[in-house]
Amino acid sequence: MTSGRGVWITLEGGDGSGKTTQSNLLAEWLEGEGRTVVRTREPGGSEVGQLIRDIVLHHRGDIAPRAEALLYAADRAHHVATVVRPAIERGDIVLQDRYLDSSVAYQGAGRVLDATEVRDLSLWAAEGALPDLTLLLDLDPAAARTRLDADDKPFDRLEAEREEFHGRVRDAYLALALAEPERFLVLDAAERPEAIAERIRARVGALLG
Amino acid sequence: MTSGRGVWITLEGGDGSGKTTQSNLLAEWLEGEGRTVVRTREPGGSEVGQLIRDIVLHHRGDIAPRAEALLYAADRAHHVATVVRPAIERGDIVLQDRYLDSSVAYQGAGRVLDATEVRDLSLWAAEGALPDLTLLLDLDPAAARTRLDADDKPFDRLEAEREEFHGRVRDAYLALALAEPERFLVLDAAERPEAIAERIRARVGALLG
Repeated sequence: MTSGRGVWITLEGGDGSGKTTQSNLLAEWLEGEGRTVVRTREPGGSEVGQLIRDIVLHHRGDIAPRAEALLYAADRAHHVATVVRPAIERGDIVLQDRYLDSSVAYQGAGRVLDATEVRDLSLWAAEGALPDLTLLLDLDPAAARTRLDADDKPFDRLEAEREEFHGRVRDAYLALALAEPERFLVLDAAERPEAIAERIRARVGALLG
Repeated sequence: MTSGRGVWITLEGGDGSGKTTQSNLLAEWLEGEGRTVVRTREPGGSEVGQLIRDIVLHHRGDIAPRAEALLYAADRAHHVATVVRPAIERGDIVLQDRYLDSSVAYQGAGRVLDATEVRDLSLWAAEGALPDLTLLLDLDPAAARTRLDADDKPFDRLEAEREEFHGRVRDAYLALALAEPERFLVLDAAERPEAIAERIRARVGALLG
């Protein structure tokens, strides 16, 4: 995507890690700087993508694993071709909630399909397009656990399984960030939102020159 | 698919080549022989597949080429996992209108995406599953042209383009049949339907032992 004049930034991390808050703060700042910001997401960031998202959500559990991965990839292919690339070519800044790192991290954690195959599928869908910057809001599941314990709430088997799953998602995200340190900015999601936003602005400011 | 007790037969060829007629005749004969026949198709051979087919048809022209290929592959993945494999495992005979050879032949003729990539995508979707037998109803587009000429109907540029496209689809199908002579039975779709059905019964009978 380096040939375009715009900038493509994706936000990654578990649910509740503060992606929306940081996306809001960053968009506000960028618009204050006079930049045009396109905010979007996957899945469902296009009209066709909404229809695909509906299928995946309405039939959850009844869709064969490879069919589900292919539906997400179809959403990605259409979204990158019709929303992201045109925005970048116009010189806009794209702020996107979740991209292929989500597919790889969650698929890897779920252990049904091979994470490398899922990544290859996504890259084929997007014709190899990768963001200029990926903001990873990293949250330790043990911190969430500590809070639960402080509440004196019983910790059942399902929650333990969920915590283990989210631990695997976190590990997968961190491995992706380690493999591409130039693309990723890893942020401690336990910090104050304004402190995180400050670090993001410093990196994005440098990126914009 | 050889591990299952059933048999999987796909029908390929251009529109109007007589696939439905031959499928009807073969199903009738097989049922007369006491076999259970499952008749299905791609795309749209499952509930999820119907939803996918709706997207592809209702948004024709507006879907990015890779997104469209991925949607067909998603349909295929779900169909093979939830319809074809269970039927084969039950010992049924699956008669299926179109499978991955359609994707490869039409994609190759359309020249937008690489036919080998489309084939690899389909094979990933279906976990490598290939039919026991593929009936290719081969029709020479020149024969159709001759009929048009006999009608004294003017042959316009669009029709010429269409004929050229269908010629490329035919060539692609024949190349696939040449590459896998064990799987394909190539039939001259210009013959009488009953003569074609006779050849099909001979081959299917041998397959059933």
